[in-house]
Parts: sequence; C-alpha cells; structure tokens
Amino acid sequence: MQSAGIIEIETRVRMAETDLMQVAHHANHFRWFEMARVEYLRTRGLVLKALIDQGILFPIKEVYCDYKEPARYDDELVIRAELIEFTKVKIVFTYQILRKLDNVLLATGKTTNVFTDLMGRISRLPDPVFNQLRK
Amino acid sequence: MQSAGIIEIETRVRMAETDLMQVAHHANHFRWFEMARVEYLRTRGLVLKALIDQGILFPIKEVYCDYKEPARYDDELVIRAELIEFTKVKIVFTYQILRKLDNVLLATGKTTNVFTDLMGRISRLPDPVFNQLRK
Amino acid sequence: MQSAGIIEIETRVRMAETDLMQVAHHANHFRWFEMARVEYLRTRGLVLKALIDQGILFPIKEVYCDYKEPARYDDELVIRAELIEFTKVKIVFTYQILRKLDNVLLATGKTTNVFTDLMGRISRLPDPVFNQLRK
Amino acid sequence: MQSAGIIEIETRVRMAETDLMQVAHHANHFRWFEMARVEYLRTRGLVLKALIDQGILFPIKEVYCDYKEPARYDDELVIRAELIEFTKVKIVFTYQILRKLDNVLLATGKTTNVFTDLMGRISRLPDPVFNQLRK
Repeated sequence: MQSAGIIEIETRVRMAETDLMQVAHHANHFRWFEMARVEYLRTRGLVLKALIDQGILFPIKEVYCDYKEPARYDDELVIRAELIEFTKVKIVFTYQILRKLDNVLLATGKTTNVFTDLMGRISRLPDPVFNQLRK
Repeated sequence: MQSAGIIEIETRVRMAETDLMQVAHHANHFRWFEMARVEYLRTRGLVLKALIDQGILFPIKEVYCDYKEPARYDDELVIRAELIEFTKVKIVFTYQILRKLDNVLLATGKTTNVFTDLMGRISRLPDPVFNQLRK
Repeated sequence: MQSAGIIEIETRVRMAETDLMQVAHHANHFRWFEMARVEYLRTRGLVLKALIDQGILFPIKEVYCDYKEPARYDDELVIRAELIEFTKVKIVFTYQILRKLDNVLLATGKTTNVFTDLMGRISRLPDPVFNQLRK
Repeated sequence: MQSAGIIEIETRVRMAETDLMQVAHHANHFRWFEMARVEYLRTRGLVLKALIDQGILFPIKEVYCDYKEPARYDDELVIRAELIEFTKVKIVFTYQILRKLDNVLLATGKTTNVFTDLMGRISRLPDPVFNQLRK
C-alpha cells in the first residue's frame, strides 16, 4: 500500500532475530525501518545502489525507536514509513511497526539520513536526483 | 576503566558488522551499547541471566543514537556507558563510542530499559536487586 | 511454489546483510536457509513455536554452504529447500539459493537439525508430531 | 596464544547473538570463525583492508560447522583457528570453539576462502603478499 508520502512493507520475524528474552532483539527494528525506507525510495525511482555508483552516500545521522510491545518470533509485521522532511542535505522518515494479525502498534521510530560524498563530507543532492524524489 | 557510574569496554568492528557503504551498519551501535550496559551491570554484581531466571525481564523501551563519524572495519572502539537514572521501574544509560586510535567521538546514544514480569507487564524491581545496584 | 519435499521462498538482500566487500556476508545464507526450512515445516502443519512450547527443541547439528556467486544488495533471492532425510531423531535439508532475475545459482547448502529436550539431551520426536510431518 | 599455524582469540556471547531457544544462533559461529581468521592474518602482517585497497578480495567459498554443545548468553568463548592450507588461490582454516570456563568443545568448523579481483574473478595472490604470509 502506498499513498502520498507513505509506504508499507511486510516481513516476518526470523528466528535469528529473536533473543533469549523470547522476543525480537531491539536492533532489528532499525533493519526493518531501513527495508521500508529503501522500498519507499525505490517506488519513487531512486535506487540506492545507483546513487552509490554516482558517488553519493546517505549515511544515517540520527535514529530513535520507542518500543511499545514486543515483536515475537514468526509474527508477521507491517512496517509503515512516512517521509516527513526532504531537502538537498537530509531526508527524514518516521515509522510504525504493526503486528499484522491484530494491527497492534509494536513500535514507532524516526531516522535522519544525510547525503555525503565518498569521503564522508556532507554534500547537497544533485538537482536531477532531488527533483526525481520531489515528484 | 570504571568510575562512579561509568564503564568502558572495548571491541573491534567485525567484517560482518560493515555494510556496502564501507562502514559499520548503524544497527550495530545498539549491540555495542548493550555490551557496555551488560558489563556495567555485571561489575555491580547484577548478572542479567540470573534476573531472567528470577522471572524479571528488562526490555528496551526507548533508544536513540546520534552518529557523528563512521566506525570502520577493524577499528578498535571504546564504548563508554554511564548510568544516569535508576529507579525500581527503569534504568537509563547514555553512551559514547570513541575510536581508540585517536579518541575521536563516533557516536553518542541513550537507552531506557524497563523491568517487566515474564508476561511483559511492567513490574517494580525487588528490593534486594534494587539495593544491590544502588550501592 | 511447493512440491513433494520442496519449498521455495523469496527474500531480498538487505543493506544490513552486506559487508564492505559489497556482497552479502556469508553468515546470512544460514539465516535464509532457516527461513526456508521454517516455511517448509509450516506448510506441513508444524509450527516451531508450538514444538518449543511442548518442550521439544531442534538445534542445528551440522551446516554446510558452498558459495558459487555473490548475493548482492537488493538482489531478489529464491531460496529452495528440500527435505532429504527425516527420522524421529533428525531432519536434513538441502538448499539452493538462486538470483531471481536470471535464475543463476548463487549457493548450495545442507543442514541437519536434531531433536532434543529442554535440557539439550537428544530425544525422539513424539509419534503425533512425527506422523504429521511424515504425511 | 599463538603457535606455528594456530591462533586463539576470545569473545563473549552477546545478547543479540542468542535466539529464543536460549542459545547462540548458529549463524554467529561463522562470525566468530571470521574474527579468529582475521586476527590470524593480522598477526602475520596481513591486514585485509589493505588487500582490498590493492584490489584483492578473498570471498568465502565453502564453510562447514559441527555444533557439539550450545554456546549460551554471556559464555566466554575461546576461538582457535588453524591454517591448514595456503596457496596462491586459496586459504583453508579449521576451527574449534571452546567454552573458556571448563574448556568444553562447543563446535568445530572449516572454511575456505579464495582470492579474486574486484570483478569476482578468481585470481592468484601476488608474490609479495603470498611470501609475507608464507613466513
């Protein structure tokens, strides 16, 4: 599903993502956020691999997650990403992770990526790429 | 090294922790924070496995990380954790990740854990455990 | 797709699964094998979580993987698992990982799981569970 | 510790490395093997990052692991790697993972790396690098 600035993807909690507290380890939520973010950009015609090949990196600058309920092994998850800010120097998404079965909200989050050159220096996104995403 | 409420541990960035942008993937920082947090508690006589065996879980409630410089493959890292709040219902740490070679600050972060029973209901830490950590 | 003893699932290589050699880190193949194995068992009515709740664990005993071509970031993968041996004490699968785009074989593998009780002692699968999978 | 072709490193099982079966997930053993392998090469003067910068990659070709006893959360592990074959086109190691506390053998394994150029074509190690490791 996908509307204006929102995308939803689905995934299932893998055995390797759980820990001995019987729930998904909290670092995985950032991998799931990333999957949704990448998919969002893909649907807008932006393939990250192509950006890298042009010498543009987009490292993470800040991340936040609020865990409301545990994600458990084998749970089907819906990850919803919303683009909330996009300039030539940064891109900000918020996220919701829902349990598909009953639509319970498991976590919310926020990430900020910046654009840099291959040396890691902050750079401005070239107009063609910027305009493509702006659409 | 360890003073009042601070501990430092060291680790080295593993190949499996890097990604194709040639730096450590951002989800790993939360694993490193966790290593320092666990070590902090261990030095205070609190072994998390023992807590679990008593029916006390300590899930993550909130995490935050600000990435300042990339951690690269094979970098030796110093992870510094500081206990900044500790009550019977939650425990809050802040973190710094430094590159050992030149002491450059790579990231700062913050985590909040809560205490729950095995059903995931928020619970208060029993006095003996609380007092042991209070020392 | 699914025939006699074969199942196929699909997944996409995540950024967090790549490493600085620009390809998926080799440990991930075992996570993908596991996803296919779990799915195979699910289609036969065997939910691993339910087994665990009955006190039956199924730890990995042996794994092998032969890497033929790298899996790259964002590649869509087809993971094909085939049950090749199933007794009351062990379960053996072989695997193929294919790149969906051109059907190129990226890796082959094999895993053996055994059944144990919660103490880790080898045990025999109870008849009802065994017969359900035998079907 | 380190003798002729053997090295030992130590690590501790992280929370994020466990799964809901209460033990370290089996994919982690390959990360631990890699840590020992990298360390072995470092002690012989071979820094993998430097090789990559010279256009030499060393992808994994084959891996095997036999799991004898589970590695558990917080266990201190000794990972012993032994170089058993080294030519200009491949490098083979065997491994043992031991629980430090009581020296129990938890797993054994074997890996084969090959050398390739940046396009992934098998290549022969240049003489200077080969001779350095031969010493």
